[in-house]
Amino acid sequence: MAFSLLPKEEKFFKLFEAQADYNVKAVKTFKALVNDWNPKSPAFEAIREIEHEADITTHEIYDKLNRSFITPFDREDIHQLASELDDIVDNVQSICNRMRLYQIAHSTPDLVQLVDILDQATDAIRKAIFDLQDQDKARRVLDYCIEINRLENTGDHARDIAFGKLFEGRPDPIEVMKWKEIYEVVEDSIDKCEDIANTIETILVKRA
Amino acid sequence: MAFSLLPKEEKFFKLFEAQADYNVKAVKTFKALVNDWNPKSPAFEAIREIEHEADITTHEIYDKLNRSFITPFDREDIHQLASELDDIVDNVQSICNRMRLYQIAHSTPDLVQLVDILDQATDAIRKAIFDLQDQDKARRVLDYCIEINRLENTGDHARDIAFGKLFEGRPDPIEVMKWKEIYEVVEDSIDKCEDIANTIETILVKRA
Amino acid sequence: MAFSLLPKEEKFFKLFEAQADYNVKAVKTFKALVNDWNPKSPAFEAIREIEHEADITTHEIYDKLNRSFITPFDREDIHQLASELDDIVDNVQSICNRMRLYQIAHSTPDLVQLVDILDQATDAIRKAIFDLQDQDKARRVLDYCIEINRLENTGDHARDIAFGKLFEGRPDPIEVMKWKEIYEVVEDSIDKCEDIANTIETILVKRA
Repeated sequence: MAFSLLPKEEKFFKLFEAQADYNVKAVKTFKALVNDWNPKSPAFEAIREIEHEADITTHEIYDKLNRSFITPFDREDIHQLASELDDIVDNVQSICNRMRLYQIAHSTPDLVQLVDILDQATDAIRKAIFDLQDQDKARRVLDYCIEINRLENTGDHARDIAFGKLFEGRPDPIEVMKWKEIYEVVEDSIDKCEDIANTIETILVKRA
Repeated sequence: MAFSLLPKEEKFFKLFEAQADYNVKAVKTFKALVNDWNPKSPAFEAIREIEHEADITTHEIYDKLNRSFITPFDREDIHQLASELDDIVDNVQSICNRMRLYQIAHSTPDLVQLVDILDQATDAIRKAIFDLQDQDKARRVLDYCIEINRLENTGDHARDIAFGKLFEGRPDPIEVMKWKEIYEVVEDSIDKCEDIANTIETILVKRA
Repeated sequence: MAFSLLPKEEKFFKLFEAQADYNVKAVKTFKALVNDWNPKSPAFEAIREIEHEADITTHEIYDKLNRSFITPFDREDIHQLASELDDIVDNVQSICNRMRLYQIAHSTPDLVQLVDILDQATDAIRKAIFDLQDQDKARRVLDYCIEINRLENTGDHARDIAFGKLFEGRPDPIEVMKWKEIYEVVEDSIDKCEDIANTIETILVKRA
């Protein structure tokens, strides 16, 4: 069954695409912020607004799921994909909140690198989501998933290096704790991208 | 198929209700403790006993699952729901253990607030579990799940605020570490309530 | 349907067994290292090589999954089991990396104990995986899963005790942070063994 034959009202894919777009937008806004750190940047408010809009889209998917008889793939996978996509933008906002609460005065090259990996991962998720509808592109979607898995390994390694640097010399323990926390939440966001890739692979695998 | 038509011996719902009751009881005992902290409180022993009884119920569900041909919903969802409900009381006991091992001498308003959110979330789970059997109450169960998701957001925010306060001024790093850990485990318990809500939503979604 | 009747080319079980073997090998190498700590040990390189080989096996499972029409159990469970088995060896390597980056000069009795629990858990997983193919051994596989759950509880308790000791007296906060991190990743690996046991139980439960 080609998904394109599904009735117009089954706009699940449009909504997943909107979620993927919000994630990309939130991460790119955050990436610009960490590349040019400013604790009074309007980026904080922009990310808060993206998170709010993304939340509305997620609830639209849940509502549609409860009102639809026919769904493009298993109901539980739709629910899981929507919930996991929503986690990314939530996480980005949570990192911003903590950086403000911890009164972080500057960025670090390690943060810039970790956020760059997150940016690549959310770009790959966006591409996978946009091609998911077209069954002929299954191989390509799978390649994006493999790429996300590779990025997650890169992220793990970057986090290990960043942690190692934090402990070098005679650091201030409070500073170490704050930064360890920030790096951890970024790395956890990259992990969540891998969860999404796993869910997409499950959908592909069931369809095969 | 109405669940009420299921044979008497299919007591899965009674067992889920018992698990939800143990969670509510453990959290309310812990809530009373953090509102009136006493490192020698009999609450520690009470929570240990609740955890032990909850464990027996969980294994009763697993056993029944392995002996039943007919189950009220998908076998894997029964397993997951039982396992996730068991996590809450385990977590509460783990927080208690750590607070004693860390020789915590007092409670904090932030801990009181986080535990209050956990209390509301376990109350909502209990209500969702008690109404899950009745298909006519699906809408109400879904509303409890939405409420649990809302509480999880509130918990995230409360944890961010609590972390921010820990780092204010010139704190003792060891104290910061102990409390960060305690707040994290409470917040993780609220996250686990959201996992349970997601599993319940999956069960509803498959049934729809 | 007996799995032994499946065509020869369905070598999924052989590949799962290889993954379980890599996990056991990585953990036993790490166990020998923490029992006789040496920051220049060839064990680090050995674990890196095991991780690399395990990775190839995991991707072989994913590839086979995408090329097979008939699978010994649900496609999504094959994917999840392969992905979770891969997590263990990844985690062991991550602990090694951090111990080197943190310039850890010695081991501790608590680390020895936690790694011993992880060793028992990966042994039990190996046995469960080797018996999974034979439907007549379902009861025995379930017993291994129960044993893994018990080990996870033991691991939680050992971690709580280890954390308590870290905070005793007037410790150096930086040392506490490093060791807390190391203990946490070992305990997280034991948790991942429980995830694998849950996935195996799901496979058994669907088959029952």
